[in-house]
Amino acid sequence: MIYLTRKIEFSASHYYWNPEFTPEENRRVFGKCANRHGHGHNYVLEVTVAGEPDPVTGMVLDMKELKQILEREVMEVFDHKFINQEVSQLDGKIPTSENIACIIWTLLEGKVPGGRLHHIRLYETPDLFVDYYGGNAAR
Amino acid sequence: MIYLTRKIEFSASHYYWNPEFTPEENRRVFGKCANRHGHGHNYVLEVTVAGEPDPVTGMVLDMKELKQILEREVMEVFDHKFINQEVSQLDGKIPTSENIACIIWTLLEGKVPGGRLHHIRLYETPDLFVDYYGGNAAR
Amino acid sequence: MIYLTRKIEFSASHYYWNPEFTPEENRRVFGKCANRHGHGHNYVLEVTVAGEPDPVTGMVLDMKELKQILEREVMEVFDHKFINQEVSQLDGKIPTSENIACIIWTLLEGKVPGGRLHHIRLYETPDLFVDYYGGNAAR
Amino acid sequence: MIYLTRKIEFSASHYYWNPEFTPEENRRVFGKCANRHGHGHNYVLEVTVAGEPDPVTGMVLDMKELKQILEREVMEVFDHKFINQEVSQLDGKIPTSENIACIIWTLLEGKVPGGRLHHIRLYETPDLFVDYYGGNAAR
Amino acid sequence: MIYLTRKIEFSASHYYWNPEFTPEENRRVFGKCANRHGHGHNYVLEVTVAGEPDPVTGMVLDMKELKQILEREVMEVFDHKFINQEVSQLDGKIPTSENIACIIWTLLEGKVPGGRLHHIRLYETPDLFVDYYGGNAAR
Amino acid sequence: MIYLTRKIEFSASHYYWNPEFTPEENRRVFGKCANRHGHGHNYVLEVTVAGEPDPVTGMVLDMKELKQILEREVMEVFDHKFINQEVSQLDGKIPTSENIACIIWTLLEGKVPGGRLHHIRLYETPDLFVDYYGGNAAR
Repeated sequence: MIYLTRKIEFSASHYYWNPEFTPEENRRVFGKCANRHGHGHNYVLEVTVAGEPDPVTGMVLDMKELKQILEREVMEVFDHKFINQEVSQLDGKIPTSENIACIIWTLLEGKVPGGRLHHIRLYETPDLFVDYYGGNAAR
Repeated sequence: MIYLTRKIEFSASHYYWNPEFTPEENRRVFGKCANRHGHGHNYVLEVTVAGEPDPVTGMVLDMKELKQILEREVMEVFDHKFINQEVSQLDGKIPTSENIACIIWTLLEGKVPGGRLHHIRLYETPDLFVDYYGGNAAR
Repeated sequence: MIYLTRKIEFSASHYYWNPEFTPEENRRVFGKCANRHGHGHNYVLEVTVAGEPDPVTGMVLDMKELKQILEREVMEVFDHKFINQEVSQLDGKIPTSENIACIIWTLLEGKVPGGRLHHIRLYETPDLFVDYYGGNAAR
Repeated sequence: MIYLTRKIEFSASHYYWNPEFTPEENRRVFGKCANRHGHGHNYVLEVTVAGEPDPVTGMVLDMKELKQILEREVMEVFDHKFINQEVSQLDGKIPTSENIACIIWTLLEGKVPGGRLHHIRLYETPDLFVDYYGGNAAR
Repeated sequence: MIYLTRKIEFSASHYYWNPEFTPEENRRVFGKCANRHGHGHNYVLEVTVAGEPDPVTGMVLDMKELKQILEREVMEVFDHKFINQEVSQLDGKIPTSENIACIIWTLLEGKVPGGRLHHIRLYETPDLFVDYYGGNAAR
Repeated sequence: MIYLTRKIEFSASHYYWNPEFTPEENRRVFGKCANRHGHGHNYVLEVTVAGEPDPVTGMVLDMKELKQILEREVMEVFDHKFINQEVSQLDGKIPTSENIACIIWTLLEGKVPGGRLHHIRLYETPDLFVDYYGGNAAR
């Protein structure tokens, strides 16, 4: 079993706001992130696929095909978007890295050819990132 | 003469839109950046000060003081902000990295103790950055 | 289950010396690191917490709170310190990255709110790092 | 149990070509990588060894010894080589990162003193890497 | 005057060999780089253009246009190529980073719209790079 | 004219203390850096040499020779050392990055074959660095 990882980057903006909180509570809990004009990040996403190398190609999966899937399922949804207003998959959720990672998993699961989606890592900044291995908390 | 550089990072969102263009022209010229909801970046700013090391401290300038100036003049203006709507210094200007760098120069010039503002570099992404040496295009 | 990681950096100095070795043995086993004046590193620490995102905040834990804990439990102990002489937690131990990582685990375990300490990674240099998952060698 | 990782870098060239494919199939499947003149990469290899720190040295293993093993088993085989023509261990295999990683595992397994080879990561570019944990797909 | 820099990456292979040297001289002067099978690198190229931001767009030049020029003039020539055999611009020259940088300058000079080619930096590895400012050794 | 840069890294420790200050003044001016036990950094040094590529080798200078010079003149002096006590070249000076850079310039000037020492950059941390172009403040 080999784990193959591809890294991509997208630029998006977001803010944190829970409508059941008062404005003061939002500012206390979320700090600067509660600014409803939004602010942004260069998100870096690592997508890891597990599989056996195909003896004919030596590859776990076709990287060109993976790149197209990431373009269609992730980049078109998130890149150069204001997540709170333009990514309907996160409606009603606070667009933290935790929640974005879970949504990206859902967007990719079952679409990876020749392998199995194993892991995604999402960097919000170089100093803050989340890892997700799917619903089966197995690890 | 020694050049001392301090790097800081801020997260902000922006979009590109010239009100004298039609929407179609904006989209053609600015591409994805014309999305008026905004999108964001982790901007990385390098501020370089030129000077002679003080024989008493061995330093070109007091780094703690520089850090406070950057906090007050740059971070409070740009960090976690939607530049088009919240940074009045850029009113009427398209908030490209070129224009943001010029504004940051203006905000810092004359405020650096014990040295002379020499250069700023602003990364919009790890693959795209601008350098500015002040109005005197000298270099 | 989501794994959230925060990266911090501290500067410290250390040396390797086993008092039961002769000076020659220390130099043979530890090489340059046996210089008892000490030498230093910019250590980079990644602290990973496992948990379910809180449905009210979308977060595994309050990042501001985690930052305060890291400041108090790690930075105050190690930053700008000569580990052999100033970090009593390592008295009688050789301050290798392996041993520093175990001590940092002990300092943090049980203090992380809203989640479970899952993993720490400590970089001594960009080319040398250790990972520790706690006493339960489970992984 | 502590996991200690050492990073090294080597420069090599390769191409992808399956002799059972027609030239057209090779170009379709492998794209630019099918250029039989070869092209190259600065490969970055991370080698992770698992073990308990030795109470006498505080180390999982002697880093100087590990460095010598990596020099002899990996660098001499791969560094500044055209893999398709000069690395006999990959004869008859397409030198993808997947296959190179498996071969490096074989070259290192059983040669690591004072610990157990746990994991290797091989970066072909900063945006593309593979992880391998040995034949026992256990993880 | 603003300096705008775009970073791109290409993978290529090369070797160093002066036909007027004996094989022994080539090996002595060029070391491992004299292996005529070639070896490779992930070259990183930074291209810097100098200009005044256009008041209508806020940009020194159209980044989409610059990207196309770099694709056509640099990537098509160098990416996934064995430089000694496939880049005719370097015929009769040893493909050191010094010489590659000069050729890239020649390929780009006069083709940059809305600005002036100011500087190129070429990384052969993260630890070794060259800078070139054009024939006018001015700097 | 081409500028060739080689990057090396050394680990050292230091502290800041002016014996003409009171202990309180030292702590006020130098903060944490005034801890006389010392603390450390992984310093990264970039050394830039200017020259014309030799038509016979395609190189500004022999990289193997430069590496030996850096090993002998810089690494042997600074690597794994406590600068305040073990680097006599800095006796009576506060070992700031500014002063270390000037000393390294002195150690290297006149020893670079086939070229001219043009520039050194010294990173104390990834976020703080100094540039020095020699006594002739020319730039």
